[in-house]
Amino acid sequence: MQKIRIGILGYGNLGKSVEVGTGQNKDMELIGVFTRRNADTVSALKENTKVYHIDKAKEMTDIIDVMILCGGSKSDLLTQGPEFAAMFNTVDGFDTHARIPEYYDAVNKAALKSKKTCVISSGWDPGLFSLNRLYGEAILPEGKNYTFWGKGVSQGHSDAIRRIEGVADAKQYTIPIEEALNRVRNGEMPELSVRQKHLRECFVVAEEGADHSRIENEIKNMPDYFRDYDTIVHFISQEELDRYHSRISHGGIVLQSGRTGLYNENSHIIEYSIKLDSNPDFTANVLLAYARAAYRLNKEGSYGAKTVFDIAPAYLSMKSNEELRRTLL
Amino acid sequence: MQKIRIGILGYGNLGKSVEVGTGQNKDMELIGVFTRRNADTVSALKENTKVYHIDKAKEMTDIIDVMILCGGSKSDLLTQGPEFAAMFNTVDGFDTHARIPEYYDAVNKAALKSKKTCVISSGWDPGLFSLNRLYGEAILPEGKNYTFWGKGVSQGHSDAIRRIEGVADAKQYTIPIEEALNRVRNGEMPELSVRQKHLRECFVVAEEGADHSRIENEIKNMPDYFRDYDTIVHFISQEELDRYHSRISHGGIVLQSGRTGLYNENSHIIEYSIKLDSNPDFTANVLLAYARAAYRLNKEGSYGAKTVFDIAPAYLSMKSNEELRRTLL
Repeated sequence: MQKIRIGILGYGNLGKSVEVGTGQNKDMELIGVFTRRNADTVSALKENTKVYHIDKAKEMTDIIDVMILCGGSKSDLLTQGPEFAAMFNTVDGFDTHARIPEYYDAVNKAALKSKKTCVISSGWDPGLFSLNRLYGEAILPEGKNYTFWGKGVSQGHSDAIRRIEGVADAKQYTIPIEEALNRVRNGEMPELSVRQKHLRECFVVAEEGADHSRIENEIKNMPDYFRDYDTIVHFISQEELDRYHSRISHGGIVLQSGRTGLYNENSHIIEYSIKLDSNPDFTANVLLAYARAAYRLNKEGSYGAKTVFDIAPAYLSMKSNEELRRTLL
Repeated sequence: MQKIRIGILGYGNLGKSVEVGTGQNKDMELIGVFTRRNADTVSALKENTKVYHIDKAKEMTDIIDVMILCGGSKSDLLTQGPEFAAMFNTVDGFDTHARIPEYYDAVNKAALKSKKTCVISSGWDPGLFSLNRLYGEAILPEGKNYTFWGKGVSQGHSDAIRRIEGVADAKQYTIPIEEALNRVRNGEMPELSVRQKHLRECFVVAEEGADHSRIENEIKNMPDYFRDYDTIVHFISQEELDRYHSRISHGGIVLQSGRTGLYNENSHIIEYSIKLDSNPDFTANVLLAYARAAYRLNKEGSYGAKTVFDIAPAYLSMKSNEELRRTLL
């Protein structure tokens, strides 16, 4: 069997997780990692992994089947997405929700021209959570959909705290509020404000002599990030932060609550939840499953940008359709 | 907008739920219900619903877009599936797992010939649970998959009890065992025996003068149905059975537990669960979402038998692909 030849663009947390994840998929092989840094200075997690400078990628279009784009949505993907769609089948986890339509159009245009298949906004949200919102809404149209994130680390919120004067380091957890969750699970279909759904808990390392109450105040009143939430701030030492808060665990829940029946007498709840020790590892594995789909769709001549909504589930599996019907249906 | 014109074949619990469910989907209209009984003697739940004899169906192929087959897997679908695939786009919930491959082949052959699109084995298991087994396995290939059913009424097990001499009526609940569930949720990936996963609880109405201990014994030792399980038997009155055990509620959980990381150090759990007040209502709504898919796939010239694995999620939604990307991704 010809293996699916994978390339990794960008070698941060996500790129490293894709490197390791490729080894879990027997039908894939890793061709190499591509970085903007000097390739000689980058040592990969696995001994056999080859590291190339990003400029080498364009010479390797015939030996890479799918390039996994592991850069950030803000800084990298808006340009890299269309650029690499012109050369490779790609998969990415573009997650700036508001800019998805425009990103889709740019990637789609490039991929149609190059006859490549490019899966955008894969991962878990957008990605698996989006799928569950769609399935939920289609099955219980007289209902409501809820997404809760956490408990888990929000990188964006942690960064925002670190930018405050006097803050040496910080970690922010997004935590679903149990009471809101239980009301949804009870079929109440409540209207929930931002504050009712999630709590924000911050662990902050202050610089020596910094004013804790000023920092706490600045965090709690930060617009967009914290002002609309109940926020708890703890000051701890760098040692404690490194010791107890270094994991990149995450999770979340998508619920669909709906009613059926001649008199709307029946209540139904669909609940999809994930609990992840490593957010990048799990995201990487989702991207790899969709890399398999991109490869196959491309073989079938289905070109352009795709999202998780456009891809039949069978394309993600190593099993043949016949085997799927026999073993998993 | 041209509405999707729905027909219902078979007017038991499921057929009635499809009748009501059609009203929740603004892009569908119900043409009528088809029954083997004398149509004049059948009154539908909704005043406007037309009831036809099954023989009329073949004259109505041009005014029905999708026929929902609501008969039983054992008695009806094996013959009706291929027969109606020769005339209509169809959706069914064929659930005899062992016979799915043969059923698929028969329906596929008929549908390819008639240029129809026929979704088989839809519903929640097979159906939504199958989807979650597939997604779970594809994303966490170094892992294990678990399906728990219940708490809910098993029709087959209830029927089996009723066939015992001296039993007037009975209801059997399948109940997941919390300890097993918690071991899976903890990421232990245990090997679980049939007995460790589910408990069977039976509520039995005995005929006057019948020997309770003999009945209890016969239930507990019934091969296939009860012998491999821990079974609890309660004797109650018919009045109590009717009062407390008349709902057709059900539910279940699919879990994927897997590990990732260079040293397999990270554990992940995906959990999909449903809690249903009415099993037939929920199943009906799944069938209707797949009716929308069958209709659209047929318009695109994608003929033959399909399962939930073969159908891209976007086909289930009333929303356009653009709207989906904007609102649900």
